[in-house]
Amino acid sequence: MITGYSWIGGRRGAGGGESWQARNPATGDCLEPIFHSEQSVDAAVACADAAFSEYSAVSDASRAVFLRTIATHLRAAEVALVERVGLETALPPDRVRGEMARTCHQLELFASAIEDGSWRQRSEDAAEPGRQPQPKPRLVSERRPLGPVAVFCASNFPLAYSVIGGDTASALAVGCPVVVMAHWAHPGTAGIVAQAVRAAVDECGMPEGVFSMLYGRGNELGGQLVAHPAIRAVGFTGSRRGGRALMDIAAARAEPIPVYAEMSAINPIFFQRGATGDDAMLDGLVASLTGGIGQFCTNPGLLVCLAGRDEEALTDGLRARLKDAEPGVMLHRGIWENYAEGVARMEKLARDVVRHPLSDGRGCQQVFACDAETFLADKALHEEVFGPSTLIVVCRDEDAMLAVARGLEGQLTASIHGEATDFSRRLVAVLETKAGRLVWNGFPTGVEVCASMVHGGPYPATSDGRSTAVGPYAMDRFTRRVCWQGEGWWI
Amino acid sequence: MITGYSWIGGRRGAGGGESWQARNPATGDCLEPIFHSEQSVDAAVACADAAFSEYSAVSDASRAVFLRTIATHLRAAEVALVERVGLETALPPDRVRGEMARTCHQLELFASAIEDGSWRQRSEDAAEPGRQPQPKPRLVSERRPLGPVAVFCASNFPLAYSVIGGDTASALAVGCPVVVMAHWAHPGTAGIVAQAVRAAVDECGMPEGVFSMLYGRGNELGGQLVAHPAIRAVGFTGSRRGGRALMDIAAARAEPIPVYAEMSAINPIFFQRGATGDDAMLDGLVASLTGGIGQFCTNPGLLVCLAGRDEEALTDGLRARLKDAEPGVMLHRGIWENYAEGVARMEKLARDVVRHPLSDGRGCQQVFACDAETFLADKALHEEVFGPSTLIVVCRDEDAMLAVARGLEGQLTASIHGEATDFSRRLVAVLETKAGRLVWNGFPTGVEVCASMVHGGPYPATSDGRSTAVGPYAMDRFTRRVCWQGEGWWI
Repeated sequence: MITGYSWIGGRRGAGGGESWQARNPATGDCLEPIFHSEQSVDAAVACADAAFSEYSAVSDASRAVFLRTIATHLRAAEVALVERVGLETALPPDRVRGEMARTCHQLELFASAIEDGSWRQRSEDAAEPGRQPQPKPRLVSERRPLGPVAVFCASNFPLAYSVIGGDTASALAVGCPVVVMAHWAHPGTAGIVAQAVRAAVDECGMPEGVFSMLYGRGNELGGQLVAHPAIRAVGFTGSRRGGRALMDIAAARAEPIPVYAEMSAINPIFFQRGATGDDAMLDGLVASLTGGIGQFCTNPGLLVCLAGRDEEALTDGLRARLKDAEPGVMLHRGIWENYAEGVARMEKLARDVVRHPLSDGRGCQQVFACDAETFLADKALHEEVFGPSTLIVVCRDEDAMLAVARGLEGQLTASIHGEATDFSRRLVAVLETKAGRLVWNGFPTGVEVCASMVHGGPYPATSDGRSTAVGPYAMDRFTRRVCWQGEGWWI
Repeated sequence: MITGYSWIGGRRGAGGGESWQARNPATGDCLEPIFHSEQSVDAAVACADAAFSEYSAVSDASRAVFLRTIATHLRAAEVALVERVGLETALPPDRVRGEMARTCHQLELFASAIEDGSWRQRSEDAAEPGRQPQPKPRLVSERRPLGPVAVFCASNFPLAYSVIGGDTASALAVGCPVVVMAHWAHPGTAGIVAQAVRAAVDECGMPEGVFSMLYGRGNELGGQLVAHPAIRAVGFTGSRRGGRALMDIAAARAEPIPVYAEMSAINPIFFQRGATGDDAMLDGLVASLTGGIGQFCTNPGLLVCLAGRDEEALTDGLRARLKDAEPGVMLHRGIWENYAEGVARMEKLARDVVRHPLSDGRGCQQVFACDAETFLADKALHEEVFGPSTLIVVCRDEDAMLAVARGLEGQLTASIHGEATDFSRRLVAVLETKAGRLVWNGFPTGVEVCASMVHGGPYPATSDGRSTAVGPYAMDRFTRRVCWQGEGWWI
């Protein structure tokens, strides 16, 4: 049942701040119930802080059971979630079920990683009592949880990067209590998921404050949360402006804290000579461009090819496949407005390749083009247009292609198509410094949840290019290594 | 030969900024030659940036040889260094030789860690081409260097945390070019060390820009360096004010970068009931307090004991051992002035236990005391007094001791003496969240250079409590994980 009130540990919040209703993006209709912004984060953070010492001492095995129990309760809510997510985000049932499976898989992946203790990355140096000129003491070090973590939900992953998504799951896995800020656009979804998490907290007898979820319209409450002295780290998925605002708040604190914000990327795909004409490749490209109505953080917003035949094959191939594309309802009004603004910007700065009229609240694949010199000269062409829009950058030769690579901002991904050549090596050497993940003859969408995944990248792709938001290394973000010196009972 | 000019890669800087001479802290005399501040960091950073792609592609084996060659050239300069370090810092020959050995050991430790490739922390997921509903691609991820790194030298470790100290060595180890800011108080030492590093660059045929060293009086040039867009990370050892200033500059950049600043700590030692009277313990404590004239970052500035017999045994033991202590020359005038100011602050806020008159430029162990309530009520008592001064905090019972532990800021170390009891466990649970390293029945000074060491800790001990400045994990600071997806020739 969705009550419209926050969870402060196991209690309901009192609201008292701004109220609002979610809207169905397909119809514009208001959805029941009314949601009530909390007025302060203090109670939730105090609750998380109070839970930290107990929760961080819970055994790895018990935390693993807790994560698996959350997955069980989440699965039990699948029917309700498919309906509510659909109403609040226009995501189709199959996508919601897929995202649900991924969310549960993440919980189980983290559960496995803590069961075997590998998350601790234990290191041990034996004592050398006879060493000269002085004895060496025994030293052991391991990772330990940072403390209460604030997590901000993503608009585009209402399950996998929201209330119990990758950030929350990885923080809970290592022993950090979490205070979640629900996303204003899918508060009902957040309510259903939070109820599942709370049920698992109760069933597993975890400390009450291990999980809270706050409703808050606007940015005020989120800013309070990041500034709160008891919060020790932040996870965020959203816009560059939003992420940077949180980074700045965190950096200005008396004690600055780490912020892991996944923000913006245009995920370039580089086509080496002769690599643009293959039908299977073009089919795959179109699927990657249009999947989720272009609303994935790994959506390819930049296609870099050589002038002449390659450009022709690419534009012809895209035109043929996209000319009858149907518009799809975007996640929420604000996203559509930003999309429309971005498309208008591209219209001014680049030439049309494939265009569809902008219909209210709906996105349909737009393809623009410009040459490398134009691209390099205008930073506005480097900005992400979140949604179905991509820019072809046409290079007169391979040097221009390398210059485009060098001119890029930080990216989540960079892909290369074609044969392995000396040029590929030079391109890879540049792209390695620009992106968290390089894809060879493939597409960036469809982030594999596995040990070797890096879903991160240099700023502005993320706030912290040393981190990944997907895979077991995501847990490292919420830990620090602690060392114990001396023979002792303690470790 | 010490020329007084910066190294811009393999060339000498032109100076042109403020000039100054080092002073012998024992006599106040100016030392030859004159040092010339560079006017801009641009040439050195451009040089480092140009070297990055080549240097990051140098094989692990060749970088290891480079580090070992630096150590060889450094050892060849030992006689000159013992003399010059002594003149510039008043550190005695044995200490300089010990620090020299440690500096070379660090270089060799990092060399070993890169020779076996372990620094890359490679992870591999095999492809599953037959997986349903979609195939799993092959994914490999490894750590890669961040790019050019700025390193600021420490006043108190003119070798081990200066020009080719732990920060520079760990950055070079993973493939990052380094631009060093020399410390104004020991510029001649910096010149000798830089010459040794440059000789190794030439001998090993490394790219010219892999190492530069800038002279700059004042904070202007260092601020420029941290703000420079091509600098990707910062290592710093020094004051809390200095470190925070660099953190703020780095956080305000268009692309914020990580800062690893080791700043300030009072390294509390907790004495459980009955643990203050042992003679061997008291001898060890006094050695830890007075070593290096109290000018170690791990110097114990806080001794926490129980009222009554324990307090009496501790104060009697310290009085007996410290009453005839001789003053020693401190590292430089600025450090002495801050020390004198800190001692004056303690005089006002706490009672005397062991006092020695303040003689110009010299420090001699001061011991103050106050009760737990006073300590907890006044943050000025939590501030580090860098140099030989310590504060005994007297607790009426174990609960007060726990309250003191909870009231602490972030620390590099926290030590506990006594028997293992339930109380020890409670104390450790608190101190784990406060310090990077816990020491059981030992002393925090004498940082072991080994795999399990954590020389770090929550703010304000360092800017980034997730990192260590000592041991092979120090290399992680200058890397990010990159993932390669797809069957390919490339990894």
